[in-house]
Amino acid sequence: MKGFGVHTSMWTMTWDKAGSELAVAAALSYGFDFIEIALLSPGKVDPAASRALLEAAELPTVCSLGLPEAVWPSRHGPDDAVAYLTHALDVAHAMGAEALSGVTYGGIGETTGVPPTTEELDRVAVTLERAAAHAARLDMRFGIEPVNRYETHLINTARQGVDMIERIGAQNMFLHLDTYHMNIEERGMAMGVLEGRDHLAYIHLSESDRGTPGAGNVRWDEVYGALAAVGFEGGLAMESFIDMPPEISRGLAVWRPVAESRDIVLDRGLPFLRNKAAQYDLI
Amino acid sequence: MKGFGVHTSMWTMTWDKAGSELAVAAALSYGFDFIEIALLSPGKVDPAASRALLEAAELPTVCSLGLPEAVWPSRHGPDDAVAYLTHALDVAHAMGAEALSGVTYGGIGETTGVPPTTEELDRVAVTLERAAAHAARLDMRFGIEPVNRYETHLINTARQGVDMIERIGAQNMFLHLDTYHMNIEERGMAMGVLEGRDHLAYIHLSESDRGTPGAGNVRWDEVYGALAAVGFEGGLAMESFIDMPPEISRGLAVWRPVAESRDIVLDRGLPFLRNKAAQYDLI
Amino acid sequence: MKGFGVHTSMWTMTWDKAGSELAVAAALSYGFDFIEIALLSPGKVDPAASRALLEAAELPTVCSLGLPEAVWPSRHGPDDAVAYLTHALDVAHAMGAEALSGVTYGGIGETTGVPPTTEELDRVAVTLERAAAHAARLDMRFGIEPVNRYETHLINTARQGVDMIERIGAQNMFLHLDTYHMNIEERGMAMGVLEGRDHLAYIHLSESDRGTPGAGNVRWDEVYGALAAVGFEGGLAMESFIDMPPEISRGLAVWRPVAESRDIVLDRGLPFLRNKAAQYDLI
Amino acid sequence: MKGFGVHTSMWTMTWDKAGSELAVAAALSYGFDFIEIALLSPGKVDPAASRALLEAAELPTVCSLGLPEAVWPSRHGPDDAVAYLTHALDVAHAMGAEALSGVTYGGIGETTGVPPTTEELDRVAVTLERAAAHAARLDMRFGIEPVNRYETHLINTARQGVDMIERIGAQNMFLHLDTYHMNIEERGMAMGVLEGRDHLAYIHLSESDRGTPGAGNVRWDEVYGALAAVGFEGGLAMESFIDMPPEISRGLAVWRPVAESRDIVLDRGLPFLRNKAAQYDLI
Repeated sequence: MKGFGVHTSMWTMTWDKAGSELAVAAALSYGFDFIEIALLSPGKVDPAASRALLEAAELPTVCSLGLPEAVWPSRHGPDDAVAYLTHALDVAHAMGAEALSGVTYGGIGETTGVPPTTEELDRVAVTLERAAAHAARLDMRFGIEPVNRYETHLINTARQGVDMIERIGAQNMFLHLDTYHMNIEERGMAMGVLEGRDHLAYIHLSESDRGTPGAGNVRWDEVYGALAAVGFEGGLAMESFIDMPPEISRGLAVWRPVAESRDIVLDRGLPFLRNKAAQYDLI
Repeated sequence: MKGFGVHTSMWTMTWDKAGSELAVAAALSYGFDFIEIALLSPGKVDPAASRALLEAAELPTVCSLGLPEAVWPSRHGPDDAVAYLTHALDVAHAMGAEALSGVTYGGIGETTGVPPTTEELDRVAVTLERAAAHAARLDMRFGIEPVNRYETHLINTARQGVDMIERIGAQNMFLHLDTYHMNIEERGMAMGVLEGRDHLAYIHLSESDRGTPGAGNVRWDEVYGALAAVGFEGGLAMESFIDMPPEISRGLAVWRPVAESRDIVLDRGLPFLRNKAAQYDLI
Repeated sequence: MKGFGVHTSMWTMTWDKAGSELAVAAALSYGFDFIEIALLSPGKVDPAASRALLEAAELPTVCSLGLPEAVWPSRHGPDDAVAYLTHALDVAHAMGAEALSGVTYGGIGETTGVPPTTEELDRVAVTLERAAAHAARLDMRFGIEPVNRYETHLINTARQGVDMIERIGAQNMFLHLDTYHMNIEERGMAMGVLEGRDHLAYIHLSESDRGTPGAGNVRWDEVYGALAAVGFEGGLAMESFIDMPPEISRGLAVWRPVAESRDIVLDRGLPFLRNKAAQYDLI
Repeated sequence: MKGFGVHTSMWTMTWDKAGSELAVAAALSYGFDFIEIALLSPGKVDPAASRALLEAAELPTVCSLGLPEAVWPSRHGPDDAVAYLTHALDVAHAMGAEALSGVTYGGIGETTGVPPTTEELDRVAVTLERAAAHAARLDMRFGIEPVNRYETHLINTARQGVDMIERIGAQNMFLHLDTYHMNIEERGMAMGVLEGRDHLAYIHLSESDRGTPGAGNVRWDEVYGALAAVGFEGGLAMESFIDMPPEISRGLAVWRPVAESRDIVLDRGLPFLRNKAAQYDLI
């Protein structure tokens, strides 16, 4: 998790042979330093093939996920969630990934209609602690990504993410921020970075509408200035959602094309993010 | 719908005797030009008492609502929704309100998991056309407020709102924007205003986290600069959600206090919004 | 004056054979719609050669200048300034330029240490009126560019520029803004555009440090949003100062390289400005 | 130099009995934590009276100045400048000031038309080193304030300020930034803070036109976010120039009222700056 990477949703949401080969070749052609792979169905991935592909490409890898409803720890307790995360970590490890992150604490779109209860947060904490311990045995890092109020009621802000991480105290846990969510939840884009600084190791660079970076409302200079100020040395991952399969659109609530095309994102948004990162000496 | 007003959720979500008297007195004390009243349960309001209170206060009034699930027109067709809106318009009219607006086309939190279908939008259009006709008979204006992708899949952007209004063609319909939603949906805050300019008559001034205006991520200069540029002469309504009853928090997805207190919003956020409006000669 | 152009200072400050051929070829290779040529020494230009070069390239042209101290009208009265401007207009016309603009009302760096007097502004007005009349006889447009408080005490803001233009009332006069100066002088970047809208036909797109556009403090979304809102159809001209000869650096007060290189400006700044202009449907 | 203070130019540019009493009373009434006094004519101040006034008010004090042309060290060498600064330091010390800062390295408005030469910078360095040593003997701190390219050719950026401070190596020297100048010179408002962080102890909060803070182009969230990120614990001093005597206007190049009135600055600009500082936990 270093340098400037990309979420492979730019090219595929299906990590099969065709999807993975397309995404890896594309990521290489654009000079990304690492990739993020959405581990939507850990059981359907061929880890050995992925590992071979990624090693040949020399592409460091982060896996990410959200939990399926059947194992939401806030509702069902830790056991099933830990089993799910353990399996996902094993698969990610077999693929050669150095970390598993994302909404590892619940579902994307999980809300109860009321603020999180103490019991819910307790269950989440126990789950994350056990999953982090398994990740540590695999020598992997394990992240949590606060997402906006509509995607979860559990962890919306950097502060809440830090509170959870510090409550658990696992050395291999890290905070994973996302500018799209920060734009809704943080009081000033810098505040998320500042409040998360002690644990921040990964950040999604995503526009306010999840479209073309630089063509929306995110205050990028505040993001990058704060990252520079706190000496951020983690991974910067561009994320944009163009053509999503229905089951993903549902969780992300993307009902229209938020960018004209993938090419616009890569030809306009990517240079924008990179030039701005260079301006702040981040890459 | 002129000048600088306020959503009465600042003081109450219950428009009974106590709530309305508190809100009206408070609105007057802060010098607002008009108020917006959430018509959550049109059947429970005492219109005559409200009218007397509002007339005594000389406070122009806008009512707003979202539709209950039982009458969502996209799902159930227009009849029940029209009946509901007709009643709401009658109540609002009896209260002395000059307009009814909000998510008049569906529920706050209504999504299907897929983009809106043609049939859904047809049903919405028929509903709005009939409701607008009833509003016209009452000499009232009738608005639609695009809200973000999580609160509806039907109308998220100014452009989509304009498309719906122009499709219907009713002279008394207007576009009602909200900076909180625009911050998520529009490509540049000015774009919502520009794309909506022909029909824009009302705007909620709400911060990116729905907390204290000026202390979040909304690019206010872009909002106000665009409003000044298009010669906006409608109503500017401050909106912030501090202490919500659970049934409202659910729709709005507010799980934590997004401002320290109502006083902070009124003592910091309100002057911020007014000074900036004055800077751009809007008030 | 339409589309997206460039100030030829990007490549040369000497409009001789070598300089002009270099600049025209470069401007074409980057696909600019027009060029601006600094007419620093009108007497030293070969108008016929320029015209041939520009016509072959099919590049519409704007000339710009500041007045030499010997003819500052605020100090010396209109006669010498009018003679100078008449000659410059004749040269520009012979080159095929459609307009002459810039600090046509005084010197770049002209200040008296006190606010402009009525007499100074009267002299400027008479000068501009007579020069505009000559331009009209040549079927040319004639612009004035407000510049910041350090470069002149006469016309710093769009409002002051409009006042001067409306006082004179010549149909061929126009307002020429510059984002670098607006960043210092206008209360909100949009305000300059809004206050100047009736006469605005040309704008320099220049960063806050005159370096790489997009890598400074100019609030570009406010600029472009306001231009879109007022239906701007004039010329957008990128301007950046990298390698200036000493006599130019002096007026511009550029004491250090404000961009790493011309290539950085063209490879990062130019796409930034163009993409943002496209976002707002300006090109 | 701690907390939120104000430049007394808000009320007076003449530090005589009347001016000082007015300014101190006003500063107290607005709850400022410290004041800055422009030491324009060190010889004309009554230090004992000032000290008594300031001690009675319990107002920590910073003095600031620019050097008169007769002693510019870049032109005349260090001796006269050091004598001038020594006297100014003695006066400031007698007044009870804890620091002397500002354009202590030259004149406000000093430019040669070319970049600074090695000899000029050498002379400045020797001057500052000797003045800093004298300040140290008085147990005072000694600052340098980079100002924009039009006000000096010597030190325009935080980086250049840091280079000068580190070259000298005096422990009591500090960097004094100013948002008005940063808006012109720094590539991103945060960059000035980041590049200056090791020596930054004082910052002028001044709007892009030197008018009402919050009503211009300064990107305040970037400024405050960066200050919070670097753990800034120095003094924040509001600065605005409304009614300047001619000799000051000249150096500052203020040719028109940049705010409607002092009351507007204090009633709108001051709360804006304070609320934003509170948002970032800086006061």
